[in-house]
Amino acid sequence: MAAGSALSGVMIWGRKILAVQRNWSCVSWRAASTIFKATDLQIELNKHPKEKPDVANLVFGKTFTDHMLAIEWSSEKGWGKPKIKPFQNLSLHPASSSLHYSLELFEGMKAYRGPDNRVRLFRPMLNMERMHRTALRLSLPSFDKAEMLECLRKLIEVDQDWVPYSDTASLYIRPTFISTEPSLGVAKPNHAMLYVIVGPVGPYFPSGGFSPVSLLADPKYVRAWVGGVGDCKVGGNYGPTIYVQNEAAKEGCQQVLWLYGDDHQVTEAGTMNFFLYWINEQGEEELLTPPLNGLILPGVTRQSLLDLARQWGDFKVSERTVTMADVVKGLQEDRVKEIFGAGTACVVCPVSRILYNGTNYAIPTMENGPDISKRFLAALTDIQYGRTPSDWVHLV
Amino acid sequence: MAAGSALSGVMIWGRKILAVQRNWSCVSWRAASTIFKATDLQIELNKHPKEKPDVANLVFGKTFTDHMLAIEWSSEKGWGKPKIKPFQNLSLHPASSSLHYSLELFEGMKAYRGPDNRVRLFRPMLNMERMHRTALRLSLPSFDKAEMLECLRKLIEVDQDWVPYSDTASLYIRPTFISTEPSLGVAKPNHAMLYVIVGPVGPYFPSGGFSPVSLLADPKYVRAWVGGVGDCKVGGNYGPTIYVQNEAAKEGCQQVLWLYGDDHQVTEAGTMNFFLYWINEQGEEELLTPPLNGLILPGVTRQSLLDLARQWGDFKVSERTVTMADVVKGLQEDRVKEIFGAGTACVVCPVSRILYNGTNYAIPTMENGPDISKRFLAALTDIQYGRTPSDWVHLV
Repeated sequence: MAAGSALSGVMIWGRKILAVQRNWSCVSWRAASTIFKATDLQIELNKHPKEKPDVANLVFGKTFTDHMLAIEWSSEKGWGKPKIKPFQNLSLHPASSSLHYSLELFEGMKAYRGPDNRVRLFRPMLNMERMHRTALRLSLPSFDKAEMLECLRKLIEVDQDWVPYSDTASLYIRPTFISTEPSLGVAKPNHAMLYVIVGPVGPYFPSGGFSPVSLLADPKYVRAWVGGVGDCKVGGNYGPTIYVQNEAAKEGCQQVLWLYGDDHQVTEAGTMNFFLYWINEQGEEELLTPPLNGLILPGVTRQSLLDLARQWGDFKVSERTVTMADVVKGLQEDRVKEIFGAGTACVVCPVSRILYNGTNYAIPTMENGPDISKRFLAALTDIQYGRTPSDWVHLV
Repeated sequence: MAAGSALSGVMIWGRKILAVQRNWSCVSWRAASTIFKATDLQIELNKHPKEKPDVANLVFGKTFTDHMLAIEWSSEKGWGKPKIKPFQNLSLHPASSSLHYSLELFEGMKAYRGPDNRVRLFRPMLNMERMHRTALRLSLPSFDKAEMLECLRKLIEVDQDWVPYSDTASLYIRPTFISTEPSLGVAKPNHAMLYVIVGPVGPYFPSGGFSPVSLLADPKYVRAWVGGVGDCKVGGNYGPTIYVQNEAAKEGCQQVLWLYGDDHQVTEAGTMNFFLYWINEQGEEELLTPPLNGLILPGVTRQSLLDLARQWGDFKVSERTVTMADVVKGLQEDRVKEIFGAGTACVVCPVSRILYNGTNYAIPTMENGPDISKRFLAALTDIQYGRTPSDWVHLV
């Protein structure tokens, strides 16, 4: 349960306007507690807004805005009304099954301010769809993805002044969905809460140029496995990686390259999807990323890079399994041009070195421009910041 | 962070007595914030104790006592003083990495009241050791296991009237360790909280007799994997199993038999360790349980059954891999006598049926007494309730 402070100054947000815009919103909320609706949104504005920070000095994920969105659910009453309220602590029963059995999931998204001063979301329905799919896998309740997006949009509208006035910084958005079931049985929860917190983040590459990363590829550590939940954005996929990340640091590497199986298939890089741009064994110029076989998180940036590359049509684009043996052979035969990670935080992040089986493999990503990485970065950020018109953006 | 209510009526619990009993406790706590100490325990008694429930009607994990133990840690200040305080909600920052990255772990233990009215813990240091090992794997801070046990013992002493006056019910103990780091970076936390909640639980088999369970063995779902954290009691091992448990229910089975690998190795049954009592292929009477190879939680009950059986010396005792093909062949050749799960909740839980590859395999556990299951149950509960003297018990 959220901190049960009585809401003061509650108002209904735009109910009439939206009811006209969307005729399906006439359905009574009383009959529809299986979903929550943005037209039912209640807003309590923060009477003590904080001073906005200097975006140049932000550490990722430590600064939050004045408001949060929270929506409570119970099996008895269904979804409550969505609430935007002052950013505050959660009051959780110590038996809450989110804290014991990791009944918790999240999403990562960003809002960008364009030169036209409009704020944009980037393909947000892909996040809503992944969030919904993950919720069902964790036995958390269903919700309407469009209503969720509209509630999230309104939160950003309320906190719009927090979206950095910058062409490299952005507002990070963290939708979170947890069980608040106050009992210790390992069972489908009867109580849950969906909430969203947001906060400004600085540029991933503060200097403006790419800084490449080094990766430890140690088959001893496995991130996800066939038959598990590696394709869902559940909390349990992340906590255990911190130890391995620290092992990588001890080996002088910045992140982990996650391998799988006896043939050491490459799966993910840190918390990013993995991309290889090379001349393949057939002599074709190819952009390659591992397939969505259950081991891989289906990243929004991953999908967007694939979509862009297929649209360009300048080289072969493949989603297929790639092993460390393939990568090593490609390096030895001078066929590898660029290796990079892709994710919401960085868009693309070049890789300069992989430590594998005690050998440091230099990756010539930076030496090759990196042409493709830069092209992707420019194309995607131009869309995100509204410099290139695209139906991938959703205006706030 | 725990709800920051100012403690009223705080007192120091037995500091002097313990300082005499243990000369190492002379070390100043100021210099030793890398551990917390039971001699520093502060106790705020609940002024509004609840009425005790009828143990006959208890649902597992829904009823809690009047107090809880909580100990906060930060990288800056180290461990704070342990506090026993009225049972209350936690006040958590919504970015707490326990809620996002599953930086959370727990233990499950019980306290038993004997016919002599003394309250006993069962091999509690095994839980403390597993908890400590799991904490390090999750990059949570280290603690002194003996001090933790002593703090936990005191909590039970404070709530001792809650330990059921019963030879089948008990007090369930849930040590929990979570990150309270209020930031979204996937990183080693700088803030954490260890807490313990306890509550009375009824007998696992209310009728007094064994009720056997049916298991769905579907290789499509995998609980843990080599290179992961299947041998740690982390939250992330549990949440994703609920969906699979519901799939088992749809197939008419009560729990899941977790398989691993192409050869369908048997690993765990529900949240229990798996035991097979049979005549093996060499014609030997054998108690067999899967080995601690990283896929298996090292259960305290599992270890105790192995220890008891080895002490008895009446049959061969093995920790080795067993596949579904082994089990099926044993059933076909009428060599399987009993299959059962083992865990803190039930001690032993007989299995009557396994649904595997579309075939229902009847397991003759109940038809065979079940002699070994009953012998284990009697031996272990006699120790736990103090009817048989044993150095496995730790008096509260």
